Amino acid sequence: MKQIRLIALTTLAVLFLALGAQAADPLPSWNDGPAKKAIVEFVQATTDKTSPKFVQPEERIATFDQDGTLWVEHPMYTQVVYCLEQVPALAAKKPELKNMEPFKTVLSGNREAMAKLSMEDFEKIIAATLTGMTVDEFNAEVKKWIETARHPRWNRLYTELVYQPMLEVMQYLRANGFKTYMVTGGGQDFVRVYSERVYGIPPEQVVGTMSGTRFGYDRNGRPMLTKEPRLLLNDTNAGKPEGIHLMIGRRPYAAFGNSPGDREMLEYTRAGDGSRLAVLVLHDDAEREYAYGPAQGLPDTEVGTFTQALYDEAMKNGWTVISMKNDWKTIFPPLGSAVHGVTP
Amino acid sequence: MKQIRLIALTTLAVLFLALGAQAADPLPSWNDGPAKKAIVEFVQATTDKTSPKFVQPEERIATFDQDGTLWVEHPMYTQVVYCLEQVPALAAKKPELKNMEPFKTVLSGNREAMAKLSMEDFEKIIAATLTGMTVDEFNAEVKKWIETARHPRWNRLYTELVYQPMLEVMQYLRANGFKTYMVTGGGQDFVRVYSERVYGIPPEQVVGTMSGTRFGYDRNGRPMLTKEPRLLLNDTNAGKPEGIHLMIGRRPYAAFGNSPGDREMLEYTRAGDGSRLAVLVLHDDAEREYAYGPAQGLPDTEVGTFTQALYDEAMKNGWTVISMKNDWKTIFPPLGSAVHGVTP
Repeated sequence: MKQIRLIALTTLAVLFLALGAQAADPLPSWNDGPAKKAIVEFVQATTDKTSPKFVQPEERIATFDQDGTLWVEHPMYTQVVYCLEQVPALAAKKPELKNMEPFKTVLSGNREAMAKLSMEDFEKIIAATLTGMTVDEFNAEVKKWIETARHPRWNRLYTELVYQPMLEVMQYLRANGFKTYMVTGGGQDFVRVYSERVYGIPPEQVVGTMSGTRFGYDRNGRPMLTKEPRLLLNDTNAGKPEGIHLMIGRRPYAAFGNSPGDREMLEYTRAGDGSRLAVLVLHDDAEREYAYGPAQGLPDTEVGTFTQALYDEAMKNGWTVISMKNDWKTIFPPLGSAVHGVTP
Repeated sequence: MKQIRLIALTTLAVLFLALGAQAADPLPSWNDGPAKKAIVEFVQATTDKTSPKFVQPEERIATFDQDGTLWVEHPMYTQVVYCLEQVPALAAKKPELKNMEPFKTVLSGNREAMAKLSMEDFEKIIAATLTGMTVDEFNAEVKKWIETARHPRWNRLYTELVYQPMLEVMQYLRANGFKTYMVTGGGQDFVRVYSERVYGIPPEQVVGTMSGTRFGYDRNGRPMLTKEPRLLLNDTNAGKPEGIHLMIGRRPYAAFGNSPGDREMLEYTRAGDGSRLAVLVLHDDAEREYAYGPAQGLPDTEVGTFTQALYDEAMKNGWTVISMKNDWKTIFPPLGSAVHGVTP
């Protein structure tokens, strides 16, 4: 009987929450405008059973890029900061790296020299810091780092530099039966360590750049998985729809991005039947965050740059563009707000 | 108000279902015995909040092999039948194949000659019949085939040769907050076509042998994904825990298999903390299904053979072995039962 009473109480609570949700604004950090309107209309059209655009609950998939779409990507991708900061510990374990490039340059701390490192150099750093250990060791290392590492501009944890309005969009979609997925160029295993706590996205809903693991046994005969420097899928550009097919097997109804690396995901999403939402976050708020992209005339080689060509494609094809400056009342969640992504 | 009334009715229905579920046997097609006992005790221990073995709902992952674990795998894997039966249509489109091996042998219909085809021959047949088309074309082709193809022994659809007791285990686990995943050596895209309808497992919860796709545009500039003969992961043996890590990113609490190809998945599952269930289906019922494995003295090279070595490992490590003959009251669902895997 105790269990029954609990169920009865829970169902009552659900009723009250349902009443409350009908009244409250699901996107309180958003100013009224075309972006908010497009998101709300999309959700209404796809979840109203009388709408010709109604989507069955099991088909409701929404995908989100991470860097520049869900959290700050300047001045460096957070995962790149992680890799660079792991180099001293790595060199302590493997002293031969101290006189080997590119590790020598990273250890020197000379920012000017580091800025000149090539993509090949970065690949060596990434391979050395993200592979060779067991999955459990890697997870523990990232967890420790992400709980203390801070962004130099705001002196906030990186996980506190997520965009409050986007957390609201994810919660709003989930409350309407959508499964929210991350589809990021970042390492799948890296993002999985904090995605559930920070965004409410469980590990199995993180699609990222994927490397192979190798199953084996430790000296006690215990099974283990070791991370290998064997790329399975580079989850950017064409890799995003390919990764979505591999990991989800369904075409999203909504996709959110901010750079040319998201272009193919947005195109693939919009090419489906019915109502499909494609959204780009435009970084036009130098004061509260950063300004880069078509309006700023920054070179296209900048990290995550939202190019003029992408902007033109968005305008031509009816994609939604979010102006951070005009559409968002606040950028970041209040400091100390418990669990950002998950409704308590 | 209409919506509120609907919610109220739904919650009442949930209450009644909860009452009913408490009283009814969740595994009606199972005889009482050690296998049923082990499954029920595992579910009780991991879902009772007062149990030291309680598992948080988001961590509740259960994985199932398909061939020989969820449906009949003799005399040939269903997907191999599909590939062989696609060869005539393929040769009609590409006449040059008619005089090329191994296609010539398959087209001859000579069973003896076909039985002698090598693994390399089969790889050629698989590549020719499972790749080169768009994802949408492939899905449509498999859907058409699986809705009519029948098993020669019973003259039933292959999808009607699923094991009723295993459907009940999956429903029982789902009713207790577990996410059920398929982890199959079969092609991921192939199984996804029918997994939701037949087993109640959605495409995003199918882990299988994975090949790459290539994103591109058709002649009208419409985005499309083409299936490529580029193996990303062979989801058998060590590939099963590797595939589980890639696609799920969590270690299962329960895993079900029937052959040496499932060994590493079961070992990996059992190596976790707390209560972990590893189960093997033993095919010892020649009358109602097939008998092969340790008791039958069949050679280890038989398809899906449950070897003596695997049986010994199971006994030594406390895995659960299901005797189809003794543990299962019925093998297959009643003919015409609407949707097997999904509670209506």
